[in-house]
Amino acid sequence: MIIPKANKLDTSQLKEIEAIAADFECSILEIQGRNRCVYAILGDEGREVMFKRIAGLPYIAKVDMIESPYKLMDRRSGLSDHRVRVGQIEVGKDKPFIIAGPCTIDPANPNFYIESAHALKEAGVDALRGGVWKPRTNPYSFQGDNHSLSIILQAREETGLPIDIEVMDSTQLKLALEAKVDVVQVGTRNAQNYCLLKEIGQLTAGSSTAVLLKRGRHMASPNEFIASAEYLVAEGNPNVMLCPRGTTPPLDGYRNHPDESITPLLKNRTWAPVVVDPSHSVGHADFVPACSLASIAYGADGLCIESHIQPAKGIGDDPKQAILPQKVKELVVACNEVWKNRYLP
Amino acid sequence: MIIPKANKLDTSQLKEIEAIAADFECSILEIQGRNRCVYAILGDEGREVMFKRIAGLPYIAKVDMIESPYKLMDRRSGLSDHRVRVGQIEVGKDKPFIIAGPCTIDPANPNFYIESAHALKEAGVDALRGGVWKPRTNPYSFQGDNHSLSIILQAREETGLPIDIEVMDSTQLKLALEAKVDVVQVGTRNAQNYCLLKEIGQLTAGSSTAVLLKRGRHMASPNEFIASAEYLVAEGNPNVMLCPRGTTPPLDGYRNHPDESITPLLKNRTWAPVVVDPSHSVGHADFVPACSLASIAYGADGLCIESHIQPAKGIGDDPKQAILPQKVKELVVACNEVWKNRYLP
Amino acid sequence: MIIPKANKLDTSQLKEIEAIAADFECSILEIQGRNRCVYAILGDEGREVMFKRIAGLPYIAKVDMIESPYKLMDRRSGLSDHRVRVGQIEVGKDKPFIIAGPCTIDPANPNFYIESAHALKEAGVDALRGGVWKPRTNPYSFQGDNHSLSIILQAREETGLPIDIEVMDSTQLKLALEAKVDVVQVGTRNAQNYCLLKEIGQLTAGSSTAVLLKRGRHMASPNEFIASAEYLVAEGNPNVMLCPRGTTPPLDGYRNHPDESITPLLKNRTWAPVVVDPSHSVGHADFVPACSLASIAYGADGLCIESHIQPAKGIGDDPKQAILPQKVKELVVACNEVWKNRYLP
Amino acid sequence: MIIPKANKLDTSQLKEIEAIAADFECSILEIQGRNRCVYAILGDEGREVMFKRIAGLPYIAKVDMIESPYKLMDRRSGLSDHRVRVGQIEVGKDKPFIIAGPCTIDPANPNFYIESAHALKEAGVDALRGGVWKPRTNPYSFQGDNHSLSIILQAREETGLPIDIEVMDSTQLKLALEAKVDVVQVGTRNAQNYCLLKEIGQLTAGSSTAVLLKRGRHMASPNEFIASAEYLVAEGNPNVMLCPRGTTPPLDGYRNHPDESITPLLKNRTWAPVVVDPSHSVGHADFVPACSLASIAYGADGLCIESHIQPAKGIGDDPKQAILPQKVKELVVACNEVWKNRYLP
Repeated sequence: MIIPKANKLDTSQLKEIEAIAADFECSILEIQGRNRCVYAILGDEGREVMFKRIAGLPYIAKVDMIESPYKLMDRRSGLSDHRVRVGQIEVGKDKPFIIAGPCTIDPANPNFYIESAHALKEAGVDALRGGVWKPRTNPYSFQGDNHSLSIILQAREETGLPIDIEVMDSTQLKLALEAKVDVVQVGTRNAQNYCLLKEIGQLTAGSSTAVLLKRGRHMASPNEFIASAEYLVAEGNPNVMLCPRGTTPPLDGYRNHPDESITPLLKNRTWAPVVVDPSHSVGHADFVPACSLASIAYGADGLCIESHIQPAKGIGDDPKQAILPQKVKELVVACNEVWKNRYLP
Repeated sequence: MIIPKANKLDTSQLKEIEAIAADFECSILEIQGRNRCVYAILGDEGREVMFKRIAGLPYIAKVDMIESPYKLMDRRSGLSDHRVRVGQIEVGKDKPFIIAGPCTIDPANPNFYIESAHALKEAGVDALRGGVWKPRTNPYSFQGDNHSLSIILQAREETGLPIDIEVMDSTQLKLALEAKVDVVQVGTRNAQNYCLLKEIGQLTAGSSTAVLLKRGRHMASPNEFIASAEYLVAEGNPNVMLCPRGTTPPLDGYRNHPDESITPLLKNRTWAPVVVDPSHSVGHADFVPACSLASIAYGADGLCIESHIQPAKGIGDDPKQAILPQKVKELVVACNEVWKNRYLP
Repeated sequence: MIIPKANKLDTSQLKEIEAIAADFECSILEIQGRNRCVYAILGDEGREVMFKRIAGLPYIAKVDMIESPYKLMDRRSGLSDHRVRVGQIEVGKDKPFIIAGPCTIDPANPNFYIESAHALKEAGVDALRGGVWKPRTNPYSFQGDNHSLSIILQAREETGLPIDIEVMDSTQLKLALEAKVDVVQVGTRNAQNYCLLKEIGQLTAGSSTAVLLKRGRHMASPNEFIASAEYLVAEGNPNVMLCPRGTTPPLDGYRNHPDESITPLLKNRTWAPVVVDPSHSVGHADFVPACSLASIAYGADGLCIESHIQPAKGIGDDPKQAILPQKVKELVVACNEVWKNRYLP
Repeated sequence: MIIPKANKLDTSQLKEIEAIAADFECSILEIQGRNRCVYAILGDEGREVMFKRIAGLPYIAKVDMIESPYKLMDRRSGLSDHRVRVGQIEVGKDKPFIIAGPCTIDPANPNFYIESAHALKEAGVDALRGGVWKPRTNPYSFQGDNHSLSIILQAREETGLPIDIEVMDSTQLKLALEAKVDVVQVGTRNAQNYCLLKEIGQLTAGSSTAVLLKRGRHMASPNEFIASAEYLVAEGNPNVMLCPRGTTPPLDGYRNHPDESITPLLKNRTWAPVVVDPSHSVGHADFVPACSLASIAYGADGLCIESHIQPAKGIGDDPKQAILPQKVKELVVACNEVWKNRYLP
């Protein structure tokens, strides 16, 4: 749909646009309103360069593309009945899929992690999370440690639960894949690091590795968020989970601005499961349970929660943010109840 | 807490500040950190003019007030055990308090309103809403009609349900109070119209009239929202309900940016009940049920929902936004289930 | 333009829409793209109720209105060559129009105001501002005083400069108009108080009183801002100046988020002059000069600046925000230089 | 500064905090206000883990760190008189530093780039920009081409102007450094890709290569923006320029939300030069000149502008966004005039 600045294109303007369209084997149809005209492009509307050329003409106000910006992630694509599995579990089937664990693995005190993992298994979670390497705003903060990888591998070994770790570059990705981690996580700061997304897609193509993709902190729109996931799928790995985790600027009193409300929009447009991170959203242990329930009420397929057996001893965000495994256990029960009452549009 | 720009105030700067503080019968305490000093104000920290004078000094980086910006709305105030009632019902006791009804009353077709009201009574709602006068961005849109007031009064008469209408100025307020409406609603565009808030507080002081105060669209912070309510209470009417209703800029795909997540912050700071408006938040009938459940999951005491027996015939926002009374009925049941599982921090 | 959810409407859906359109004497044209169809409405596209009815159909994704939301404020309207005057001066002719003065008039110390006014006259400003009544987030803050009105009237008398004061309700408006103030200001919290805007428009219709309308703090879009002004003009007073003043959430380090960048968008769509308030935007005296120059660089017609001869003694926002009249004088010179080099699209 | 939730810590709470502080060789001072107490930490306040432990206690409302989050970028650091040079030119000395060029180099039509470069040299710019590889939201859009690197190298050869290209991963970085590009650009989507920032810092340590670091689109706060730059400097390359380029959500009518107003905040906190990108900010050629002048008025040291000899033929954002080299020439003159009148706080 082409919308001119004036009420109508004059003859020479229309000719110019028709000539551009002809270059792309398209034609133009003028539609007469009472007060003004708009112009439809007949033919393949997906040709981006043609659109940009027309949009750049000085007398054009706007050109609207109607096409979906993503092909494979689209709910109407051939992947519409793809189901994502982590370990033995199909994400979002019958009940919420729960990932939980400490923010950051403390290489100096491995027992905190191992004991948290056992307590969480007992609480009924489906997978473990734990930071091996950490994206830190401050370059002088603790950045993680390769040794932590062996700690989370030991936790998997002992509990039998699949594990989820964040990677930030090619080197970390390769270490994670060598260790056959079950879920590779892409953090909010890398949500549009397309080079990293492509490499993950390529190196996990055809495998059972899942990817937990966090939403960009800049209030990435639903389409922009899904388009980031498209990079993974287009390289051959459709095992993608979308993870809202709060955006900036924060709501005063929380760490970020909670964004579980984006869930119905995502589920309407794509087939991919949505797994919300309530811990980074609200950033305070007191508010994590309410945010978790609200996420399920909004239709989320799962949650990714920070939990630690002794939050105050954590070396990441745990002191403020982590909840006790016992609380996770209660929350699993409550989430299952809310799950039964939710509305999926 | 006074924080100087430099690491320490010099003697003459400290003297200047002490002189200002002395004017207000306060004194200054220097606190020595390893790298810098900060200064506490001993005495009545609530004297705003003193704070501003100190904050204006060229060598001061910041002055922090610790006092609550509201006195009566504070959860720790003498009103902490005040309960808001609408008609016979205590808001937020035992189950969600549900207000529902068409967006705008159609003066040309009163039956739409009357029949919607009966259907909603049957659906189990606690009160009726309906726009008599409407705030419209476009001055040439339908602005409401005094005749609509008689229609909603008739609906109250026939159903026995209390009624909620929005007022935008002194004239409308007086008409509403003459008609003894149960709930006076202040819309988002007037959320900081302090003159109107004061007049409502004065004219309803000591009465049983409740006020539903919507949150400012500009992402009013929890404190700013509560401070608006303080205007009402300070004039003598503590029957205030706080109503999150979405903020701008909108989340792409919704009408506004849903904000039910502010609920725990409000409930932590004040004793007032929170009644969420999911209809304006998401702005599409398909998404209203999920947003309603999420609001209850977040701890809201009630909901204010747009509902119409024939949404497509509505003259306000109904065609997009209103849900059927039958859907409200289902939703009431689901909300009650979620209510039982929620966490209040 | 009607955009269905599916690629094409089926016959019965198309019939239903055609029937709605026929009710409004319009017809529907189907436009065939390669992948999908859209539908144009032929006839008077301005009929809002028809649009809402179509938008409410379950199979419709979107309906686009192309009409301008404002008629008289539109740059292409019959008012396109209207010029706003304040006192003897045409706003935005040849050089920036500068309003300046203390935030709040101190009724206990009238000399601060009177002396500031004389100093500002000497600095070359075109009009005086000063708060008589104040919108305050905290109900217990100083709310202004009728006596202050006589102080600013005295300043006008002595300097010969026109005066600008903010009004918040009908009572204040009437007092201001009795005193024949030159500019009535509507603050950001009342930017969508349509009842107040209509009353101002009515009571000043046909007079030479100008109105300075501040932008809503919620990042009111250009169209929403202009639509508020349309309320004034539609009632008969076209002497409107649009005043960007910063929005929320604030940029960390400023009081608000500066928004002088909206100026070119406003000037492209309407004929009304733009007068930026840099003082509330940045909220710190140190940054006001840079923001002032940037506003002129963006094409603003004028500035509204807080200035006080002794900022630290001010009772409003002055201690942080006001600049000295001497600084205003320098700034007037610098603004005139930038004015000569600006680009108006 | 420790602020408890209650008005005062009880004895056992105070003991617990003192014990944590003692672990880090710090002590606690209680400060008595009239209504409540706060607690200062005496000793090294920079110990992040201690702060987190205290902040995690259930009775603590807030812990404030006063330390700068960056050491080397701080205006008061030992680098305070470091000057960034690109080629022979010191950025921000005497006049604005102007980088210009097409958005994306068209590998199929190298002459567009080469001719644009010559025209821009003639227009008086200081350096050339051009996209070799492109971050694209849509994975199916043109992603750039290694061949384009040789085209921009040819342009440098012919014009003698230094060149700026964006890199997105390790592979591209190495190609760029082999080609000895003068400025390596980090885009907004990678503004917090700390792995990439560290690698750039390491590989350019001690060299004359400059880095143009764009601001994160999520309205990265001034401190967060500067902290990203700290990653580069901490690895050994202090030749950093900070580049505001607009944030999301966009101002309706622009591509992004213009953010040149952040300039004074950056310049107040760090010694690094600020080079604004007006083209991505406003996203429309018509508005680029005004945004450029406003940036200089705000105190920016330079600009990075998209320019193309035939914008409509560009393959990137040029059709909408690029201005003609002739317009750049005029703009250079106007910017120099504004430069003379700016205020630096």
